[in-house]
Amino acid sequence: MTQQGIEPVEVVGTGLIGTSVALACRRAGVEVLLSDAEHGHVRTASGLGAGRARTESDEPRLVVVAVPPDHLGEAIRAALDAAGPQTVVTDVGSVKTAPLEAVAGHPRLSRYVGSHPMAGSERSGPLAASASLFDGRPWAICPGSDAASDAERAVERLVEVCGAVPVRLSPAEHDRAVARTSHVPHLLAALVAGTLTGAAPEHLALSGQGVRDVTRIAGGDPVLYSQIIGGNKHAVIDVLGEIRQRLDLALEALESGRRVELESLLMHGVTGTLAIPGKHGGPPRPTAAVHVALPDHPGELARLFGDVGEIGVNIEDVRIDHDPGRPVGLVELDVAAESADVLRDALESRGWDSHR
Amino acid sequence: MTQQGIEPVEVVGTGLIGTSVALACRRAGVEVLLSDAEHGHVRTASGLGAGRARTESDEPRLVVVAVPPDHLGEAIRAALDAAGPQTVVTDVGSVKTAPLEAVAGHPRLSRYVGSHPMAGSERSGPLAASASLFDGRPWAICPGSDAASDAERAVERLVEVCGAVPVRLSPAEHDRAVARTSHVPHLLAALVAGTLTGAAPEHLALSGQGVRDVTRIAGGDPVLYSQIIGGNKHAVIDVLGEIRQRLDLALEALESGRRVELESLLMHGVTGTLAIPGKHGGPPRPTAAVHVALPDHPGELARLFGDVGEIGVNIEDVRIDHDPGRPVGLVELDVAAESADVLRDALESRGWDSHR
Repeated sequence: MTQQGIEPVEVVGTGLIGTSVALACRRAGVEVLLSDAEHGHVRTASGLGAGRARTESDEPRLVVVAVPPDHLGEAIRAALDAAGPQTVVTDVGSVKTAPLEAVAGHPRLSRYVGSHPMAGSERSGPLAASASLFDGRPWAICPGSDAASDAERAVERLVEVCGAVPVRLSPAEHDRAVARTSHVPHLLAALVAGTLTGAAPEHLALSGQGVRDVTRIAGGDPVLYSQIIGGNKHAVIDVLGEIRQRLDLALEALESGRRVELESLLMHGVTGTLAIPGKHGGPPRPTAAVHVALPDHPGELARLFGDVGEIGVNIEDVRIDHDPGRPVGLVELDVAAESADVLRDALESRGWDSHR
Repeated sequence: MTQQGIEPVEVVGTGLIGTSVALACRRAGVEVLLSDAEHGHVRTASGLGAGRARTESDEPRLVVVAVPPDHLGEAIRAALDAAGPQTVVTDVGSVKTAPLEAVAGHPRLSRYVGSHPMAGSERSGPLAASASLFDGRPWAICPGSDAASDAERAVERLVEVCGAVPVRLSPAEHDRAVARTSHVPHLLAALVAGTLTGAAPEHLALSGQGVRDVTRIAGGDPVLYSQIIGGNKHAVIDVLGEIRQRLDLALEALESGRRVELESLLMHGVTGTLAIPGKHGGPPRPTAAVHVALPDHPGELARLFGDVGEIGVNIEDVRIDHDPGRPVGLVELDVAAESADVLRDALESRGWDSHR
């Protein structure tokens, strides 16, 4: 086997994800071949240092299919048709059962292992790509029951080369997982955002950070997400059914004024937020927010973070709060719960207007 | 009239919001009297410099009722019962129709003007209070049809003293507005979060920033939110009905594979996200994200913001992305769309690993 056991890698589809995979491979010194139905994309990706255009005579060891969801099955099948007996084919699509079904019965089926990096951007195309897009992100590896073990290892090496964290799941389990953690949240964010369409401006003036957070991902490309969500319909329908059932319970509780039932639905949500794993893969750690008011221009943020750095408290998350009406930023610093008072006191002693 | 025309201000209920109102009044030099069923809370608030305990002989000019939602009507009625002919009574509750109905027919009804500051915290109690909690935030003023105009002006002065931005709405309009911008988003965030309860840890390992954002507010106190949402049931049921209808459309579109209908539901959501007003009350301005990878310890953030400050690009929002697996932070800097390339290039020339 050559270096990394996977080179040359061929990337089929040089959009955001494909070009990022190519750049990450190049960063690790792995040879990359590029293909795309749009030749302009290959030239752009190549110009970014993502590799060179594939020629007829090239023999890739690992083919990474990174085309839009609706074309995945067909592109994986084409890659298997062209594959040599040692070639491994993977894809980076958002669903994993449908592409596997699309290649069922293929004579080279054992050479296919689907995968899914949990990373993206609100932008698309090769110009939005980055070698570091996958650094530290989960990357699901989802072998079908016919997959060869050396094919799985090759995909695992790709994940390592890209700096991501492999998470092994069966294709069906993967699709159930992303229905719950990604597709249904996206769809519900869109339904909530939809209720704002056409609302009176003076009503929308009361929008706070909460509704902005709930609806943020609803800004994503509707064509792409309808392919992703539509491509995982069985798992999405199951989770949507749970939501619909509890939505009806909420409506009944509201109509009949049964406050305790409403409370228990909300409590169920609190439990769910606590189930999401914390940063760095560990269990969720209690954090607390410290708010700081500051003039909304570049120098002040730098000064604030300079002070925070000197105080030496680690910031878990930052949010600049929206502030209709005046040029004052409200910065929320999330820190370990036990450090919040220390940080607030230290910031106040340095003249910052801070509160928890 | 005395200074500001509203003093002494009495604050009834010295929790987070009440004590913050008191501290903001004190910041402006306004005399504040404190009452609370829990005498300990008054002592705590008083110790924070929020004012002094009210005595029998005090005659407040403006009474601010800041008790939990389920006790609002009763507390506003008690304040009106005790009010002199010039006294004005307001409240800071999250719904505005129910408390007005609770005092319907009161002989002093013209002295009551409800209001609602759009500010809060995930914490509660006087120790979480801050004089700057309302700075730059919208604060709805919601006079009933019987309200006297001098009473409205007094509440407007309170909003100004607290540094907030007055937004005038009728009580019914207010309740419809917050059903849409706050209560329904909260309830749906809880329903989405609820589907994570009991999910397999290896499924939850695929959680990204999207589901964290959608579910963040679902972590709020279920008892408080069931009072708030339950107290606005008619408006909430209306908006929930819209969501339920579109949820059924989404289920039908998924089941029958009608992709275009799914796409149109998602497009409706995109339109909704664009309707939320931008920072500083202006129309939404197109922003773009610049991502920077950095070691997850205090000094690096300070160094990054130091460089951003020198580069001179204004940061609209900041997010530290979650990074299971390794001690690298991914910082998302949201900037005006036209500044994103400038910022990325300048950061890269300073040695940062950055991408859009």
